[in-house]
Amino acid sequence: MSFPDTATLERRLSRVRETLDSLGLDALIVTDLINIRYLSNHIGSAGVLVLTREAVHLLIDFRYDTAVRDRQRSPAACPDLRTWAVPGSYDEALAGCLVEIGAARAGFEATHLSVARHEWLIRTLAARQAEITLRSTEDVVEQARVIKDETEIATLREAAARLAAVVDAAVAAVREGVVERVVAGVIEAALRDAGFERPAFDTIVASGPNSALPHYRAGNRVLAQGDLVVLDFGGVLDGYCSDLTRTVAVGTPDAEARRVHAAVLEAQQAAIAAVRPGVHASSIDAVARTILEHHGLGDAFGHGTGHGLGLDVHEQPRITRPRPDMPPVTLAPGMVFTIEPGAYLAGWGGVRIEDDVLVTDAGCDVLTPGRRDLLTR
Amino acid sequence: MSFPDTATLERRLSRVRETLDSLGLDALIVTDLINIRYLSNHIGSAGVLVLTREAVHLLIDFRYDTAVRDRQRSPAACPDLRTWAVPGSYDEALAGCLVEIGAARAGFEATHLSVARHEWLIRTLAARQAEITLRSTEDVVEQARVIKDETEIATLREAAARLAAVVDAAVAAVREGVVERVVAGVIEAALRDAGFERPAFDTIVASGPNSALPHYRAGNRVLAQGDLVVLDFGGVLDGYCSDLTRTVAVGTPDAEARRVHAAVLEAQQAAIAAVRPGVHASSIDAVARTILEHHGLGDAFGHGTGHGLGLDVHEQPRITRPRPDMPPVTLAPGMVFTIEPGAYLAGWGGVRIEDDVLVTDAGCDVLTPGRRDLLTR
Repeated sequence: MSFPDTATLERRLSRVRETLDSLGLDALIVTDLINIRYLSNHIGSAGVLVLTREAVHLLIDFRYDTAVRDRQRSPAACPDLRTWAVPGSYDEALAGCLVEIGAARAGFEATHLSVARHEWLIRTLAARQAEITLRSTEDVVEQARVIKDETEIATLREAAARLAAVVDAAVAAVREGVVERVVAGVIEAALRDAGFERPAFDTIVASGPNSALPHYRAGNRVLAQGDLVVLDFGGVLDGYCSDLTRTVAVGTPDAEARRVHAAVLEAQQAAIAAVRPGVHASSIDAVARTILEHHGLGDAFGHGTGHGLGLDVHEQPRITRPRPDMPPVTLAPGMVFTIEPGAYLAGWGGVRIEDDVLVTDAGCDVLTPGRRDLLTR
Repeated sequence: MSFPDTATLERRLSRVRETLDSLGLDALIVTDLINIRYLSNHIGSAGVLVLTREAVHLLIDFRYDTAVRDRQRSPAACPDLRTWAVPGSYDEALAGCLVEIGAARAGFEATHLSVARHEWLIRTLAARQAEITLRSTEDVVEQARVIKDETEIATLREAAARLAAVVDAAVAAVREGVVERVVAGVIEAALRDAGFERPAFDTIVASGPNSALPHYRAGNRVLAQGDLVVLDFGGVLDGYCSDLTRTVAVGTPDAEARRVHAAVLEAQQAAIAAVRPGVHASSIDAVARTILEHHGLGDAFGHGTGHGLGLDVHEQPRITRPRPDMPPVTLAPGMVFTIEPGAYLAGWGGVRIEDDVLVTDAGCDVLTPGRRDLLTR
């Protein structure tokens, strides 16, 4: 596992501290584990971080003592880190930390704190007569994460490039008579051989009618002549996700399969061609959607065109229709996301083609490798 | 994938409806995906369920239409299911559903609803002048889940039994000169060969000094003579998790390794022997902890003795020290959990031994197979 260095963390922390200043907050309580990792290099299934102007307060239980201590002696040390031991409950420790550091206005992550934890914190701070106001915030760290820094771009490039061998193995595993799960096994073994620490999500091998289910994973269906097979997989490298989909035909595809595949590919390539700084994310979605509508496949495309990639496999920016509950996003250099239109016809089958792109000053780089035409096996 | 049948769902639903009655609620908004699955057989990465006395309202987006429709025609149909299409935002659809069904007092899952979603719902319902009061609830469905029904016990038994071949493969893969990640790869391939749909969590292969890190996963360290290697893995079968840990020595273990392993095994076996209905969960933890303290390893055992297993790999009951933030749990037949004491000495190494047990009328059944003594390779 390689980690971002101290200078990189310093830049991330100052970006978030600027937001805190603009929100009039003395502290930010970070409970999302991915956000904690982004700001401190702490990786764990538990932890709470309280960011103030002066320090990064990291609350961890004993399982992480050694890892954090070792990292703090390395080039990946988190600047101004103060660790707080958590002997029992994290929320108890958090209340104690807030009282001791005396942050008058502390923001919390409203999308990552449950109502139960929030209610408990308010009750507990009141019982201790702490003069602390908790304030709802949303997406403070996520907004910093949406523009990838150089370390992240290098990792995301490398992760996407390493899918080349996995695509080859995946396509080679598709043949008549093989069970979907076995193909998924080949893909996951290839991910590991390529050096990924784990699959980024449950590998999808959806054949025949199953390929019409965008959320299907891999089951016991045996691949048959005439099937379309959607292969959707990715790996995690140093915490960063890659994500790629190809659709393969078993035997000679019929005219309808070729038509649907060509339409999806046209939509996907047009969407990629439209990616550049200054464009709205929803415009990219519109490009793909309009082409599929033109081919009579508008209703067959029920999901968004893409999603951001980073420490999370689904993060900002969302490449979707404009939504009243989400602020519009303007693309900017350093954003990384998928472009993955699809068409799904219940009972018949489906096609999806997905690549990962990085927004550059001039347009975008396609990070994922391999052929996109309808391969037959 | 096999699913619980309609009669099983009916029993689960009526158990939860009894709780709603006792809480004076007309409806329960279920946002936890595992709880949704438990009550309705809906499996997905999205969904909201609103349980009323009369119906199970399932809010899903188009990706799940076909799967839900097919299942409703099968023996696994959810009784009184009414599906609601979600064209855009789930919260928008939820607000619409609540207004339409007119539940005056609707409980929500306070540990599974974020402050942000809760605030949005309250604002939106107020703007529509809906006479709906949202009430915090905790663990309503989780309390039903803690006692496994016959379908679940059969699946958990089968899942644990299938680890036999995986243990053999895991132990066989441990030898001097092999990289931790490669051992993890062998384990995950064996899980798939055994018919598991996926690993239940990131496989742990922690060798030498890494074995002192209870939360380590698997890295690039090469196994060496004298290492202790903690192997912790499990698979998911029809949604249900298994979880097992063995510690293996590379070459001849020294006296300290044998001593620590013997102490942990003594603690583990004593804890298992103490499991029976009527006993407090914290007493089981005390049994293991006292033995490790007696061997001077109390400080080396920093985590709880076990956790419930089911659709979630960490669920109730928690086998831990009494905690002020958790109500005490009395063991009852049908509970399934792990018993996994360990001892971790920073810089030296660690030992953990873990089995899954089912509480029976008389005591408990150990579900997981294989030898527990210190195997050498």
